[in-house]
Amino acid sequence: MNDAAFASLPEPPYYAVIFSSRRTPGDAGYARMAAHMMELAAGQPGFLGAESARDADGFGITVSYWANEQAIAAWRCHAEHRIAQEQGRARWYAHYALRVARVERAWDGPPLV
Amino acid sequence: MNDAAFASLPEPPYYAVIFSSRRTPGDAGYARMAAHMMELAAGQPGFLGAESARDADGFGITVSYWANEQAIAAWRCHAEHRIAQEQGRARWYAHYALRVARVERAWDGPPLV
Repeated sequence: MNDAAFASLPEPPYYAVIFSSRRTPGDAGYARMAAHMMELAAGQPGFLGAESARDADGFGITVSYWANEQAIAAWRCHAEHRIAQEQGRARWYAHYALRVARVERAWDGPPLV
Repeated sequence: MNDAAFASLPEPPYYAVIFSSRRTPGDAGYARMAAHMMELAAGQPGFLGAESARDADGFGITVSYWANEQAIAAWRCHAEHRIAQEQGRARWYAHYALRVARVERAWDGPPLV
């Protein structure tokens, strides 16, 4: 079984951006933007992968993984991403929290066959 | 608005355990164990908070936050938690990935009023 929800990552160290958010009710263009941002992020230098889950109440966690802090800083300042961030604050998110972390160890189980 | 899904954390640095998982179909005692493990974790020395989301397809991310690596190691070896880990590998998870990371920066928005 392959499972595309799991990011396939190199050995640590690398960086994680942990983005927790509560969506406002309704779509208001969110799904389209989110898919486009994920595509765009995947094309950035230093992008390693991402995982995402959102529950039925609209609370979600997206973790994106990056080779280094410079890659995170560049993505944060990307022009289209900045517009999405503004829309996010104005419309899509009731609240969010961002944490930037250095991944030091990683393991997984049971094996994907 | 207060939103209990968000962890209320001190200033960095602190540690994050990022646990991504794909559930097997059916409950099989999972919900009860998960609630009990969260209660138990919350009582451990160095536990700072946790956030969790699982989508309708059974892919979920739980991030728990800890004061230091020692607290993570102690929780990993906790007797009841070890039993839950075994059950997780045997029954509840089709696959999981664990990443231990040092949180260096954190911010949030829009303010919870």
